[in-house]
Amino acid sequence: MITLKGAAVSAKIRVEVTELLHGLSGAAPKLAIVRVGERPDDMSYERGALKKMENFGLQAESFSFPADISDEAFQKEFRRINDNPEIEGILLLRPLPKQINEREIERMIDPDKDLDGISPENIARVFAGEAEGFAPCTAEAVIEVLKANDIDMCGKRAAIVGRSMVVGRPLSMLLLKENATVTICHTRTKELEKTCQDAQILIAAAGKAKMIDASFVGADAVVIDVGINVDNDGKLCGDVDFDSLDGIASMATPVPGGVGTVTTAVLAKHLVMAAKKHRSS
Amino acid sequence: MITLKGAAVSAKIRVEVTELLHGLSGAAPKLAIVRVGERPDDMSYERGALKKMENFGLQAESFSFPADISDEAFQKEFRRINDNPEIEGILLLRPLPKQINEREIERMIDPDKDLDGISPENIARVFAGEAEGFAPCTAEAVIEVLKANDIDMCGKRAAIVGRSMVVGRPLSMLLLKENATVTICHTRTKELEKTCQDAQILIAAAGKAKMIDASFVGADAVVIDVGINVDNDGKLCGDVDFDSLDGIASMATPVPGGVGTVTTAVLAKHLVMAAKKHRSS
Repeated sequence: MITLKGAAVSAKIRVEVTELLHGLSGAAPKLAIVRVGERPDDMSYERGALKKMENFGLQAESFSFPADISDEAFQKEFRRINDNPEIEGILLLRPLPKQINEREIERMIDPDKDLDGISPENIARVFAGEAEGFAPCTAEAVIEVLKANDIDMCGKRAAIVGRSMVVGRPLSMLLLKENATVTICHTRTKELEKTCQDAQILIAAAGKAKMIDASFVGADAVVIDVGINVDNDGKLCGDVDFDSLDGIASMATPVPGGVGTVTTAVLAKHLVMAAKKHRSS
Repeated sequence: MITLKGAAVSAKIRVEVTELLHGLSGAAPKLAIVRVGERPDDMSYERGALKKMENFGLQAESFSFPADISDEAFQKEFRRINDNPEIEGILLLRPLPKQINEREIERMIDPDKDLDGISPENIARVFAGEAEGFAPCTAEAVIEVLKANDIDMCGKRAAIVGRSMVVGRPLSMLLLKENATVTICHTRTKELEKTCQDAQILIAAAGKAKMIDASFVGADAVVIDVGINVDNDGKLCGDVDFDSLDGIASMATPVPGGVGTVTTAVLAKHLVMAAKKHRSS
């Protein structure tokens, strides 16, 4: 079984980003990372994103707010970031605390700065399979991993376990755009093992530690693990029991070291694309 | 094989519409049907919709424009219809002629009047599986046919042939909302017959006359035909070779007399729902 490492994919995206940057005049594009509260997941992702932007020659600024900020105050702060012409892309860490009307923010964010595809405008574009617009970075990272490893998707049976708005749903549309035959599975799916076994490309995005083991995987399948969980020993692990797939799957992504690092590379690519559009308009 | 007739489903929806109407004060809700040019398909659908609205005790008005109307003139006319408070729902017959920027119209239409789900706002809601918002009427008509005939979707394997924005894509999300395991097939799908055979609920929305015959259908499957085509003899037919399924499928919708008549019933239901929201706001 070949291990599909995220670092190699991220390096390829870095080359693309560097090329795009050469075509841009002016300062390096700037990302705003907006965080409310101090959830460890958010802070870990924020650190990774900041590091990646620096590594890719891009600017990033963190905007953090107390967990108990009022809806009104946050809307005002977010509007200010959204309207700032020096900020060409925004990453909003979610979910937001309950007192904040997240839907209002999704509708407020400038679709051209909405690098993680949370606005209706970008969602509709992903759904329609359009070339323009930004898909959620994690969903797109899966496509980048497949493409970077020359895994043809056209006509292939792809199964996704999980139907979230962050991965499962948008990924189904991105795979469809690549002409895969797409099956969306979830907690209510009957005979999940059988359905997964039938897939040539299997994507685990269920958010359940090591739930996908060898019994779910068909011979020579490509397995992409989007999960980020903590196992019983407190160690980071994916939705896939990676070691169990050896001798069955043809290729699989590890966790950590797989899709995660590609996600922030996609974020960087989106930022440069946003800057390019912004500066040419 | 049981024939699932659209008329029975439409009659059930009529009861719902009548109940909703009883809760409304004021004039009967009014639909605007907007048509550019005189394509026979559009005119046939328009006649059907006008008749259905009348039959359901609703108002409808046709707004038709010449096929060569300028983009600017059409945008102006559409805005007037969109802004008219007496019009509580709009059906825009599409596709529009090439000189008209359809995307602008999709972004202009008031999501609360957008009964056929063409605005980004409604698309995003359907994609997210939210309770609010309007799905395209044809996609929702399929769900209505299944529900009216007590066909449980939860955990079932559903396959859709076709990935259009009018049926395939939104229907995949509506089936997901009902907890089906959904597979989306299309022209690039390999082993289409095998994939379709595996489905407990098979939906044909490919737009190709009689392409789905017995060889695509598993034992006891429920087959829903969304196609409206004209066969070699000039007769209306679906995507399914209905007669060939006898003894294999458990139930199937005919064409004509199947999903089509339910589509306009869903349109009527959406109109009353829109009016209810409009009048209570």
